[in-house]
Amino acid sequence: MKPVVSQTHEMNTAGNFALGVDIGGTKVAAGLVDSEGVIQFQTRVAMPARDSAEAGFAAVRSAIEAVLNAHPDARSDLTGIGICAPGPLDPATGVILNPPNVPCWRKFPLAAEVQHAFGLAAKVDNDGNAAALAEALWGAGKSYRNVFFATLGTGIGTGIVFDRRIYHGRTGSAAEGGHVTIDFRGPVCGCGKRGCIEALCSGPAIARRAREQLFALPAADSILRRLAGGDLAALDAAMVAEAFRKGDSLAASVLKETADLLAVWAGNIIDLLEPDVFIFGGGVAQLMSAFFGRIQDQLPNWCVNRRFAEIPMVLAKYGENAGIAGAAALCRAQP
Amino acid sequence: MKPVVSQTHEMNTAGNFALGVDIGGTKVAAGLVDSEGVIQFQTRVAMPARDSAEAGFAAVRSAIEAVLNAHPDARSDLTGIGICAPGPLDPATGVILNPPNVPCWRKFPLAAEVQHAFGLAAKVDNDGNAAALAEALWGAGKSYRNVFFATLGTGIGTGIVFDRRIYHGRTGSAAEGGHVTIDFRGPVCGCGKRGCIEALCSGPAIARRAREQLFALPAADSILRRLAGGDLAALDAAMVAEAFRKGDSLAASVLKETADLLAVWAGNIIDLLEPDVFIFGGGVAQLMSAFFGRIQDQLPNWCVNRRFAEIPMVLAKYGENAGIAGAAALCRAQP
Repeated sequence: MKPVVSQTHEMNTAGNFALGVDIGGTKVAAGLVDSEGVIQFQTRVAMPARDSAEAGFAAVRSAIEAVLNAHPDARSDLTGIGICAPGPLDPATGVILNPPNVPCWRKFPLAAEVQHAFGLAAKVDNDGNAAALAEALWGAGKSYRNVFFATLGTGIGTGIVFDRRIYHGRTGSAAEGGHVTIDFRGPVCGCGKRGCIEALCSGPAIARRAREQLFALPAADSILRRLAGGDLAALDAAMVAEAFRKGDSLAASVLKETADLLAVWAGNIIDLLEPDVFIFGGGVAQLMSAFFGRIQDQLPNWCVNRRFAEIPMVLAKYGENAGIAGAAALCRAQP
Repeated sequence: MKPVVSQTHEMNTAGNFALGVDIGGTKVAAGLVDSEGVIQFQTRVAMPARDSAEAGFAAVRSAIEAVLNAHPDARSDLTGIGICAPGPLDPATGVILNPPNVPCWRKFPLAAEVQHAFGLAAKVDNDGNAAALAEALWGAGKSYRNVFFATLGTGIGTGIVFDRRIYHGRTGSAAEGGHVTIDFRGPVCGCGKRGCIEALCSGPAIARRAREQLFALPAADSILRRLAGGDLAALDAAMVAEAFRKGDSLAASVLKETADLLAVWAGNIIDLLEPDVFIFGGGVAQLMSAFFGRIQDQLPNWCVNRRFAEIPMVLAKYGENAGIAGAAALCRAQP
């Protein structure tokens, strides 16, 4: 397999469909997405992320072929192939650099390889950016110019879309909003920084804060110990949310604190970027959606902007399929 | 004086000069700026900011007339009149809302009044945005696409320019980067937030931290007490810088801490926006320029981005005249 570096294929902007490919550490999902962002068909194959570069690419190729074989008529009507992949990567050239979750690829020219294999224009970006674009074009951000998107889950990923364009920054590494520090003396994050919002409000961070409260308050009457099966190490954010729904006051205080921390962070985003909307995706966003009102109630303390109340905080439209939709959206962004 | 709300005057994009007007709480400065950003002539008049709206406008008018009278030939060669004024204001309509420093104007249609009075297109923006644009077009940011500008002084103001356009956000209130919180338990800022970078690293905040160290370490051998004339309330950031230059170790530790705090903040900006360059203006930036290297040395701890070292931190080209140049630059920005 020769690396192909030229990107000679132009998007067929009139195409009614885009093919979206979502590459993760264990699977490749691919789907056919229409011009309204509706996923018409999807499939997935295993991703041998620790095998050779060729084996990794063969998985991508077979996922794309599965979509094309299922819908042979769509091929002539395709605007291109969009791919979202774990970073770091270079969205300008479509080269995958050295992703920890997909170690088979190092400086792998993914966009060029896909273009070469299928004769269709290909675009590559990371999952946060792609999901933000899908929301901006077709989802909860459809009627807004400046969209700030965050996935709250095991980590916190973000994407920024201005005027239907992903904001990339100097080398494509902008929009790492999960690593904005609000407490420089705070807990250390996996990223190495202290007190960034991921270290405070990701799913594991919520579980850690609950665990700390249970240790600090051994007499506290909380069902969390039982939900964790007596092993606090097994406690997770979903259990905290379940306990909250059942009226557990310790769980409620942990989730309120989560909202208060997210308000500090959202205030920073508003004061820097004044987006038109915040869109939250991911499992923790579902758990936290009952607290979006509390986040907004705290904003007067955490932003200079006096019109914060006009900036809605809403759940993402795309859930598990954000990757496929986002990948397809890459073929529809403003150039 | 009837309010004129239509903005019918188009920029004469071929004009060799722009007239820049810088409105503050006590003065109006105005100048003639050529297409390379060189200020060819400037003048200033007093601003009766607490008088009537008409008296405030008369000062602006007389400053503009003074420039036009001094250079009568330039009039036909003017691209327009740019004005920077204290916020809050609406850059889209050129209306001054309710600036604390210029209380004579409430919802005052400044751009429309200037257009009506002079028959020339007028643009209004705040000083941080205007100064950022002058640096991006003609100054230290000339060769960069994404420019992050900060004035470090009595306060910390910022401006963001992408592709020769000011980034305004939803209502023109974006780029309040001085109020990004990095320590949510930190000192209260004039803005009401806690631990924002202005509360930690503005001139008064540097003086406050020096004062706190002098109180905490009464035995410390420091020339700061003498420089302040024995009255620590009189201590300011310039004295801290002077003491540092004379080898004072307490002053050095205060300025090093300032650099370390600015590194946390700059790391947040990099992770969100990945600008091509940081440009620092204002008096405190001059004092701190010896510590830009230290800020960059701390960045590995404070940003996820691994290419931080490629983002230069430089002093602004425009000093005291940043307002006039920035105002003129408003007539030259990408539409």
